[in-house]
Amino acid sequence: MTENRQVIIASLPQESLGVSDFEVRSVPLAQPGEGELLCETVALTVGAGQRAGLQGSASYAGAPRTGIVMGGTGVARVKESRAPGFSAGDLVVGPTGWQEYACGPAKGWQIVDDELDPAHHLGVLGTNGLTAYFGLLEIGKPAAGETVVVSAGAGSVGHLVGQIARIRGSRVVGVTGSSAKCDLLVDELGFDAAVNYKESNFRDLFKSATPDRIDVYFDNTGGDILGSALFRMNAHGRIVCCGAVSQYDTKNPGAGPRGVPGLLVNNRVRMEGFLIFDYASRFDVGRRQLRDWLKTGELVEKRTEFSGLGHAPEAFVALLSGRTTGTTIVRVSE
Amino acid sequence: MTENRQVIIASLPQESLGVSDFEVRSVPLAQPGEGELLCETVALTVGAGQRAGLQGSASYAGAPRTGIVMGGTGVARVKESRAPGFSAGDLVVGPTGWQEYACGPAKGWQIVDDELDPAHHLGVLGTNGLTAYFGLLEIGKPAAGETVVVSAGAGSVGHLVGQIARIRGSRVVGVTGSSAKCDLLVDELGFDAAVNYKESNFRDLFKSATPDRIDVYFDNTGGDILGSALFRMNAHGRIVCCGAVSQYDTKNPGAGPRGVPGLLVNNRVRMEGFLIFDYASRFDVGRRQLRDWLKTGELVEKRTEFSGLGHAPEAFVALLSGRTTGTTIVRVSE
Repeated sequence: MTENRQVIIASLPQESLGVSDFEVRSVPLAQPGEGELLCETVALTVGAGQRAGLQGSASYAGAPRTGIVMGGTGVARVKESRAPGFSAGDLVVGPTGWQEYACGPAKGWQIVDDELDPAHHLGVLGTNGLTAYFGLLEIGKPAAGETVVVSAGAGSVGHLVGQIARIRGSRVVGVTGSSAKCDLLVDELGFDAAVNYKESNFRDLFKSATPDRIDVYFDNTGGDILGSALFRMNAHGRIVCCGAVSQYDTKNPGAGPRGVPGLLVNNRVRMEGFLIFDYASRFDVGRRQLRDWLKTGELVEKRTEFSGLGHAPEAFVALLSGRTTGTTIVRVSE
Repeated sequence: MTENRQVIIASLPQESLGVSDFEVRSVPLAQPGEGELLCETVALTVGAGQRAGLQGSASYAGAPRTGIVMGGTGVARVKESRAPGFSAGDLVVGPTGWQEYACGPAKGWQIVDDELDPAHHLGVLGTNGLTAYFGLLEIGKPAAGETVVVSAGAGSVGHLVGQIARIRGSRVVGVTGSSAKCDLLVDELGFDAAVNYKESNFRDLFKSATPDRIDVYFDNTGGDILGSALFRMNAHGRIVCCGAVSQYDTKNPGAGPRGVPGLLVNNRVRMEGFLIFDYASRFDVGRRQLRDWLKTGELVEKRTEFSGLGHAPEAFVALLSGRTTGTTIVRVSE
């Protein structure tokens, strides 16, 4: 334990991201200073929003550059603590970045419970789960019996959104990118219907799957799927703008949806973006509910796992090309 | 009084509307049946939303067709009443359509107060004023000191939105289509700034006019101005989607704004469409406030007037090409 393997940004992708945009290097292990922690990464999560982060000013995550460790959230084991409140052995979640060891200020790290599979803290009990929970319930506000549609429905956030909506008594339709994913949503996760947006007759299928139109559309994709949903909204419908994955992995993110603003006016639709950080004061409430649902089995977490830090770039590319389902996890140690 | 002059839809416009899309004809005057009114039109208002109505399914107003009287709201004098609650001589507002006399069921007509210039009932005390009032205050919810931007700022709704925002203590910026209109907004109506979107350096001017960015954008236009505003929204900003006049007078409304949904997410912006009819139960409250402001002179109504029913098509074309300011009125009788 004298070296630290890291995945660094080798080049900023101009078009689709590739594994060659990253490099692995080893650097001497840093030592924590006063108020700092040294943590060993257990697992990382890779999210589509990180692709937006590589676009620079297009994202809230700040400007990226080459030569630095790829950022990201992970679950880790404290190896050495020089900060009050943390002890060696604690399981923590924080900004590990893509590296075996993270060393830095304790701020931003949080001790998490050690009873569950640590990966849950990066999915259903982490940002993905909280995003699904607060985005759907606080912005979407679905009522029982209403129709909720979620795009990237088999994704890290989407598969949880659909299940939470189902638990709350809504009719749930997922939009996703393969028939296998559609089957997963309906057969395993209890969605009422699922539609593959790659089918040539997607619009017809989408219409058939939403006979009572749409009350809440939880948008993870933007682009054409958002455009289609706009035409199916009921009066006073709500569109939760969570992400725009269709627009992340390209230099030229196409025009916006034609229905804006005309259809918003005609159908009195509310369309609202949110960032989960705004709900930080209530994370505990959300996490408790998600954990209860997880315990009873009402809520199931799906995961696609990769093994070894060196596979993080591959996990990221797989995610962006739609080859993963649920939370994408890279297991690094333990 | 045996004939009724009417303006009928002669053709449905394919591109820009022209006066030749209308024809004047005379028909025998109808007699009111049981429960009906015969009303003589005093004045009509012409609104940009009516252009959307001529697009058929694109609008909430239902499908249009040739050979029928052009629809529209007017203020009228009851000539004969066969409906309870109405008497000959009452001043009323209702669906006159573009004709000298309207004859039909009393439903949809409302007696209004006869002390003011009747045209006020088609502007500040009518749908325009109520739209400005409820749209700004209920959807936009501007706080004192916040920056409110309104497009079509010299239009029938826009010039009232800006004044209401000013009365409520916001900093107000109008976007309009000529330097004369900009002068009107700032010099006569108390806007803090105004920008002409036809200037080649509009984006720079717009930026300079909104140094603290935008908290509430009241959108009457859609299109490029909406696109520019999206890039200037503050976190938790609100976009009130009232209309899309940039997209009415054409067969091919351009693509939607590029910032949707990405910028809505990053800045947690709420974008919400509304129709004034949803606020009907509170019209009296709004009207009372608007009338009070009118009396004290805090709120001023601007108007562009045309004289004679036959000039209604010309008024409509002038409105759509941006040659009118404030409420567009066609005086028909009295």
